[in-house]
Amino acid sequence: MEIERKLQSMGLALPSAYTAPEGLKLPFAQVRRYGNRALVSGHGPLNPDGSLRSPFGKVGAEASSDEGYQAARATALAVLGSLQRELGDLDRVAAWLRVFGMVNVAPGFTQTPAVINGFSDLILELYGAGVGRHARSAIGVAELPFGMLVEVEAEVAL
Amino acid sequence: MEIERKLQSMGLALPSAYTAPEGLKLPFAQVRRYGNRALVSGHGPLNPDGSLRSPFGKVGAEASSDEGYQAARATALAVLGSLQRELGDLDRVAAWLRVFGMVNVAPGFTQTPAVINGFSDLILELYGAGVGRHARSAIGVAELPFGMLVEVEAEVAL
Amino acid sequence: MEIERKLQSMGLALPSAYTAPEGLKLPFAQVRRYGNRALVSGHGPLNPDGSLRSPFGKVGAEASSDEGYQAARATALAVLGSLQRELGDLDRVAAWLRVFGMVNVAPGFTQTPAVINGFSDLILELYGAGVGRHARSAIGVAELPFGMLVEVEAEVAL
Repeated sequence: MEIERKLQSMGLALPSAYTAPEGLKLPFAQVRRYGNRALVSGHGPLNPDGSLRSPFGKVGAEASSDEGYQAARATALAVLGSLQRELGDLDRVAAWLRVFGMVNVAPGFTQTPAVINGFSDLILELYGAGVGRHARSAIGVAELPFGMLVEVEAEVAL
Repeated sequence: MEIERKLQSMGLALPSAYTAPEGLKLPFAQVRRYGNRALVSGHGPLNPDGSLRSPFGKVGAEASSDEGYQAARATALAVLGSLQRELGDLDRVAAWLRVFGMVNVAPGFTQTPAVINGFSDLILELYGAGVGRHARSAIGVAELPFGMLVEVEAEVAL
Repeated sequence: MEIERKLQSMGLALPSAYTAPEGLKLPFAQVRRYGNRALVSGHGPLNPDGSLRSPFGKVGAEASSDEGYQAARATALAVLGSLQRELGDLDRVAAWLRVFGMVNVAPGFTQTPAVINGFSDLILELYGAGVGRHARSAIGVAELPFGMLVEVEAEVAL
């Protein structure tokens, strides 16, 4: 439980599982494990209770690039929470492989890599440059579910 | 051929292979099989003859959320058609792994998960909660090829 | 070094590694290798020195579909450059698996497959229809980093 200890020493807690808005079914798995692969569904930033974390809207309009960075960091915690529930122990991640970062952008906001750095920085801080090493994209999308600022889909090896 | 039988009992038929617009080359495979993995190209909703299925345009403008749901369900049939042609038998899918759902959205349409449920619901209905279990994202994109309402890229294990 | 020889005989050179704008950290790997998989980060079109290649902006506004095609072809060279630096020899690619093509689109530009053909055509020219065979999506996104015309994320097997 080394990663969990690091999180604690950094004063970071993992949020509860995402709770969908009333009336919405989410007929998929937050993490799909198969063999030594774990495919991680698109996650957004969460509050400790599993509700979506504000602000909502567009980075470059309703939210600043720095708020986007913080949202991406919170998204990393949400992903780690899902992995923790699936794997029992975050040390079971043998390698981060792929991080696909999507930013809910206002027209003309092109600094999407700086936003998704909030995700990558935390993963590297926790897992180091070896296990934490990942391929990444960071794009601007037209809309994200419920107006989330950021969404990240990922894959890790076990 | 259990999945094919289920489809038949539900009154569902798989569409023919997608036929590109005249003059457009599509230099890629609808399904790329490698080892026990099958990577599925982005598919959209098709008519039985393999032509793109209307309506076209934006969910939240030219089309309703429910029409988007139906388009996502038709997209699942198109994907199953491609898998059937590649694998010969849809029972050869050992596990659904990843569903990446893209919705052609009008500004402000953020109910993308409800749309992509049209895809997930059919997969789960056919394959059940074990084999059908998948990781998923459901995002809103700026444009899709030829104005399709929905596009889904996927990966399954064999 | 057969692929490198083909590139040379076609008069094509691989660009240097991408150099991020001053002050921007890019805390991820251009290629993440794990087992026999190589996951390729989102790449854009580069100049020979590794700087981003103009034009910038939207396909369908600041740039034509043909300029988009050329950008996608240049993006393939950038990806091959990263793979060459990671693998030492481009012949080590045993199979192209997945090409995820993103086009920075003006509203209403839906000919994204024709743009991403610039990537697929070059891969098939170099690797042939067996090794080069890939699954693909080609979508229109709201924004790409720094206004690049095209971005491609990929996976290959080794």
